[in-house]
Amino acid sequence: MRILLWMTLVLLLTSCGDKDSNQAQGDNASQQQVYKWKLVTSWPKNYPGLGTAPENFAKKVEAMSNGRLQIKVFGAGQLVPALQVFDAVSQGTAQMGHSGAYFWTGKNKATAFFTSTPFGLNAQEMNAWLHYGGGLELWRELYAPFNLVPFAGGNTGVQMAGWFNREINSMADIKGLKMRIPGLGGDVITRAGGESVNIPGGELYTAMQTGVIDATEWVGPYNDLAFGFHQVAKYYYYPGWHEPGSSLELTVNKPAYEALPADLQAIIETAARAVNQDMLDEYTARNNQALEELVNVHGVEVRKLPDEVIEELRKLSAEAVSDLTADNDFAQRVAQSVEAFKRQAKAYHGISEEAFYKARQQ
Amino acid sequence: MRILLWMTLVLLLTSCGDKDSNQAQGDNASQQQVYKWKLVTSWPKNYPGLGTAPENFAKKVEAMSNGRLQIKVFGAGQLVPALQVFDAVSQGTAQMGHSGAYFWTGKNKATAFFTSTPFGLNAQEMNAWLHYGGGLELWRELYAPFNLVPFAGGNTGVQMAGWFNREINSMADIKGLKMRIPGLGGDVITRAGGESVNIPGGELYTAMQTGVIDATEWVGPYNDLAFGFHQVAKYYYYPGWHEPGSSLELTVNKPAYEALPADLQAIIETAARAVNQDMLDEYTARNNQALEELVNVHGVEVRKLPDEVIEELRKLSAEAVSDLTADNDFAQRVAQSVEAFKRQAKAYHGISEEAFYKARQQ
Repeated sequence: MRILLWMTLVLLLTSCGDKDSNQAQGDNASQQQVYKWKLVTSWPKNYPGLGTAPENFAKKVEAMSNGRLQIKVFGAGQLVPALQVFDAVSQGTAQMGHSGAYFWTGKNKATAFFTSTPFGLNAQEMNAWLHYGGGLELWRELYAPFNLVPFAGGNTGVQMAGWFNREINSMADIKGLKMRIPGLGGDVITRAGGESVNIPGGELYTAMQTGVIDATEWVGPYNDLAFGFHQVAKYYYYPGWHEPGSSLELTVNKPAYEALPADLQAIIETAARAVNQDMLDEYTARNNQALEELVNVHGVEVRKLPDEVIEELRKLSAEAVSDLTADNDFAQRVAQSVEAFKRQAKAYHGISEEAFYKARQQ
Repeated sequence: MRILLWMTLVLLLTSCGDKDSNQAQGDNASQQQVYKWKLVTSWPKNYPGLGTAPENFAKKVEAMSNGRLQIKVFGAGQLVPALQVFDAVSQGTAQMGHSGAYFWTGKNKATAFFTSTPFGLNAQEMNAWLHYGGGLELWRELYAPFNLVPFAGGNTGVQMAGWFNREINSMADIKGLKMRIPGLGGDVITRAGGESVNIPGGELYTAMQTGVIDATEWVGPYNDLAFGFHQVAKYYYYPGWHEPGSSLELTVNKPAYEALPADLQAIIETAARAVNQDMLDEYTARNNQALEELVNVHGVEVRKLPDEVIEELRKLSAEAVSDLTADNDFAQRVAQSVEAFKRQAKAYHGISEEAFYKARQQ
């Protein structure tokens, strides 16, 4: 009887730790542990595009990890305020964040370039710069002292120049213009004699309605229609010049990331890349539809900024970038990297993407 | 003593199947099984861009699955010839394939639209149509009878019009032109009085050198430079009109896919999405660099197709699509879906992406 029991024991031990050539080497402790993470964001919970991307990310990670990495997504203010995402992930209050790098210019001005540069790179170019042009390496270097590992976390495509209650026929019309426009774009408007302010998205409708501001940029037709700006603004101006391909960020607390087994790290990296494209796909499809609705259903008047205004904004943008990098060596390295990439991108996209758009429009 | 042994047994059973709230539910048979798959491709092993994408896909899948799904990538001809990828995956000779849908017009003409349509969608729009415009659903429906599950598997961006040893100043210059150009683009060249041929990439250099053909399109600067076409052709023409955003495909044998546990299915889906963007990122960055080298180092003469030629090619393209769909209801549904999406994309990208390119070029 004792022999039988011992045999049973041996059998159980064998089947329990089964590791023949057809079995994965994955049942050690870290492979079985369930990680429950928090992801804080700068957007209202489930806000179209910006807010659905981190939800999609969390779903993909949970499905791919078979529930071993569960990420709970928090809207702005649910766990930390919208503009404390960076600090919360840096300090480990949450393991992850979804936000925009240009909110953190108070930490280092160089962060601005990892969202968008006025007259800089569009979405396709931004993704190419980040992943094949040295951009991500610079970003990692910049965020390392803050205990953060950044990933590209979506792109909105070219943003619209914005909603205006004043006609813009020359640079003189920008003088005294009170406009919601953050980041380098806001700096440019200030240089042009306007007044740039930053107001959270949810308050913009009322601010336009009551005349607290004369103009606001936000994102593009998909998000702008959702906020109803067409009800409180006269003109919808293009082209977007201030944020030609705004990249969002997924950040991970570095010690938390490094404590993960390699397969879960790979899952985070790949899910981020997938969501990075998925958001642009969503914006592209929905912006197209929303513009049609704005024009055909709501009678929105779409206007083009005059060429001489564009030209002047371009000069002021170069000045803004130059001033920003003057006393910041790292920002200068990043700006030079973006500029070198842009020079080649302009040349090639001039005869490919841009030339194709023209050929198709004929 | 027997009691001690029984207690040991119970302990072993408990620790062996440990499933408390901190443990993943992942140690059943399918979770531990190792799947060894074959992926056949239509490209030379490790060919830049096209060939590196499936390798990257396999690496991501292996890392994310912790080795539970191992995919061996085969170059064209190593397991099956380049143009038998569809059949091989359909029949289960290989579990996956990486190729281009427009190679399979012999199966159903509608496949052409899942690669690219002349004067149709560029890369950004193609991805948006596939993932948010109903494209992928149509593709799945088309491939289901062949036991295939398709995923978008990369995009080259706008392809160049090609390399020519004859000046193209008017439509008359296309008469008698012998050009390597497959798919709907080739159909258009034939309609214009030229002669379209399909020659594998590896034979194009010699075909141009010996005058067997007068012109060839291939991909863009990155791949074209690698083949050395600048040594055997006089002019490099733009804009690409025939393949404005060529999408590649990752196909999976349906029974093999359905036999996978859900986490490995999610891993395949997400890795495909990540690689779909990664390829475009790579082409965008490398095309930019390669164009600069072609022009500055090799003195390549870049020429624009005259507007009236573009205009005529556009008319002939519409005829080609119309003829292709005339006797194929499914192709008609797909063409209509692409066309509806393009109408909106043209309107929005005209005031966003295209308008931004112009603003930046000023």
